Amino acid sequence: MPRPEIRFCRLCGTATAASIPPGEDRERAVCPDCGYVDYVNPINVVGTIPVWGQAGEQVLLCRRAIEPRKGYWTVPAGFLEFGESLPDGAIRETREEAGARIELGELFSVIDVVHVGQVHLFYRARLLDLDLEPGLETIENWVVEFDRIPWDEIAFPTVRRTLEHYVADRAAGAFTVHTETIERRRSH
Amino acid sequence: MPRPEIRFCRLCGTATAASIPPGEDRERAVCPDCGYVDYVNPINVVGTIPVWGQAGEQVLLCRRAIEPRKGYWTVPAGFLEFGESLPDGAIRETREEAGARIELGELFSVIDVVHVGQVHLFYRARLLDLDLEPGLETIENWVVEFDRIPWDEIAFPTVRRTLEHYVADRAAGAFTVHTETIERRRSH
Repeated sequence: MPRPEIRFCRLCGTATAASIPPGEDRERAVCPDCGYVDYVNPINVVGTIPVWGQAGEQVLLCRRAIEPRKGYWTVPAGFLEFGESLPDGAIRETREEAGARIELGELFSVIDVVHVGQVHLFYRARLLDLDLEPGLETIENWVVEFDRIPWDEIAFPTVRRTLEHYVADRAAGAFTVHTETIERRRSH
Repeated sequence: MPRPEIRFCRLCGTATAASIPPGEDRERAVCPDCGYVDYVNPINVVGTIPVWGQAGEQVLLCRRAIEPRKGYWTVPAGFLEFGESLPDGAIRETREEAGARIELGELFSVIDVVHVGQVHLFYRARLLDLDLEPGLETIENWVVEFDRIPWDEIAFPTVRRTLEHYVADRAAGAFTVHTETIERRRSH
């Protein structure tokens, strides 16, 4: 998602001007009529790593029905909405994309995707049952062993990095919070 | 910061209409002319807990020069900008508000403030020197012992909770990541 090019005030419809508001140090889209400053900030994407099996040896993947990366695999994730918490957003997206009911666990990864203005946050989770149903954005669900994850068909770098960390932590027997930054565009 | 009431398309200036875009489940401000959907999402606030002293027994506080909570104490924090990572934003805000140079540490707290549509993320940090200079939004800096923090004069619940967690973890000798949600308005 590129940065939107703001040209009009979203409150009063007047053409905005690029100027530096008092006390600030960079240009914003400012309304010369009503004074509204239209800040553009990174958006949060929240998701889960929903596991299944006695030892949590399987993970729920969703095959994307929409662009970008249609046909590729992801874990359930989507944009955090105004008025909901990160955990509530992660639970909602898991239900919407996979029809899955989960017990949410701890925050697991926080990954900046600087060039698209997004922060991706993933939570550990346990599936409560296998009564799944793909949502509108999902072609099919797949509950797959961690050692059979189709690494070359994972939709997004943040999902791949999160699953890689999860596999490593699971092997080590201890889960921690992982933070990292993805700065560059990849080929996809 | 309340949710903005969107009435006009920020790209083309046409009056927007509240409607549910295809494949979605809730009303958005949609432009009937150019089709732009103006999503409103929570915004990230990033900050640091900059410590000083051989055992990190002091912390840098800033007295706010602006509303809200003018005159009250905070740690350096502010809105994450498009095009920067969470760590870069935390470092920038610490420099802007306190003139402080830091070595950034690990992510420490992630706190949802649901009713204002914000997520506050604080990082551990070490001051590199005491060559500080209050920024435009700061009346004065104060490097104070943790056991002398003016708890009743802390500006925001997320800062108070973060400092409380920090004091507890420091006493326990082990720092972990703290996540929580603040749903209700407090009296201030």
